[in-house]
Amino acid sequence: MEILVIGIGAGDPDHLTLQAAKAIERVDVFFVLDKGEVKQELVELREEILRRHGSQYRVVVGQDPERDRSSAAYVESVDDWRRRRADVCADLIAGELGADQVGAFLVWGDPSLYDSTLAILDDIQDRGELTFEVEVIPGISSVSALAARHRVGLNQVGRPIQITTGRRLAKNWPDDVDDVVVMLDAQTAFTAHTDQDAEIYWGAYLGTPDELLVAGKLSEVAEEITEVRAAARERKGWIMDTYLLRRNQR
Amino acid sequence: MEILVIGIGAGDPDHLTLQAAKAIERVDVFFVLDKGEVKQELVELREEILRRHGSQYRVVVGQDPERDRSSAAYVESVDDWRRRRADVCADLIAGELGADQVGAFLVWGDPSLYDSTLAILDDIQDRGELTFEVEVIPGISSVSALAARHRVGLNQVGRPIQITTGRRLAKNWPDDVDDVVVMLDAQTAFTAHTDQDAEIYWGAYLGTPDELLVAGKLSEVAEEITEVRAAARERKGWIMDTYLLRRNQR
Repeated sequence: MEILVIGIGAGDPDHLTLQAAKAIERVDVFFVLDKGEVKQELVELREEILRRHGSQYRVVVGQDPERDRSSAAYVESVDDWRRRRADVCADLIAGELGADQVGAFLVWGDPSLYDSTLAILDDIQDRGELTFEVEVIPGISSVSALAARHRVGLNQVGRPIQITTGRRLAKNWPDDVDDVVVMLDAQTAFTAHTDQDAEIYWGAYLGTPDELLVAGKLSEVAEEITEVRAAARERKGWIMDTYLLRRNQR
Repeated sequence: MEILVIGIGAGDPDHLTLQAAKAIERVDVFFVLDKGEVKQELVELREEILRRHGSQYRVVVGQDPERDRSSAAYVESVDDWRRRRADVCADLIAGELGADQVGAFLVWGDPSLYDSTLAILDDIQDRGELTFEVEVIPGISSVSALAARHRVGLNQVGRPIQITTGRRLAKNWPDDVDDVVVMLDAQTAFTAHTDQDAEIYWGAYLGTPDELLVAGKLSEVAEEITEVRAAARERKGWIMDTYLLRRNQR
């Protein structure tokens, strides 16, 4: 058995690489965890990618376990959720994939950035009940898509970049770093740093027809981004956004 | 005039996205700065990509200015080099690109990560003598390619990632970060941290037939990587490598 983990880009079907298109063509079974959410556009986009590039395939849907978002113990709650997702995925693979078949998980963005699919497959392999090869196909991350749409580099000359979460940025701006990229920020943590002499490059629904972009001096556009973000989230029922904060060097 | 900055991936021609392939098809003039270096494989790989995806195009080669690598003032020396590159590029664009034509620069990896093309185009536009639109097509970075080949995520749950240079890592391991990705490391800075309880995932010539991968406990494989790297560099005359250092959480 072989399992492919395929990065399919940030939202534009043309973010797909030639490598990903070829990989999709040889997949027999695509595994999807149904999140029971309202992101109907993402479901349709994924289906469009499969129609365009898939050959002879089945799509098998498992029930994504509930995640305890109320828990204060964030890491433990994520670990537990991963374990339960691994249970679901192990059952799907064992039940649906033939010994000489190729299965696949499609991942938005790049499988290496804040995605749990690889950890879930490691977990399943560690249990020792199922044996399969894993191949990973890299994808265009929302970070690359954001920088491209704003036509900016992520780093300044010879300087580091930190990619982090809103939860961490809300506590403090990382030490000794001027360029900070934030993924998965449900709490608009950039608003905690409007006292900084910094620029922000923000984007939501990157690569899709609903794409939103705002850039400017952080102190001047933070409020606008908060409003645009809230309105879009209300309108569509969900939001996926990413931003780069660039502190002007002192 | 329109200038496209197209990310072409880390070395595998199939890293190209559908978006990049379509962009290449509509380019009239590709601008190349001749680095006078021995990376003949990279030149051939770029030519192969153009043959496969280009339509009616010319390739125009400019002379890349010398960079003063002896200078202790790293940032100033890079700034000066960029300015001189901008001079060369401005001349190429003004001399070779018609008003209704599309020009392009192809960038290895992703244009947003440690690449100077966008800064050069900004510089040219700031001078006000040439007017053109810029569009950026994101690409698979060597960072994504590295993680994919090692089948690892770049981050741990809820934790940040820092992307930095060998020069900086040689001085110290960044504060409050366990996962560090290093690009452009001419000095094997990981060898300064073999006292850490950490894993290293290293790769060179990613995506090419010469790809090299080594992973393991940093203290155990640092020497092997240094040797493999030196031998490969000697054999081919150049090396491009990237690595992830993952400190085990205490």
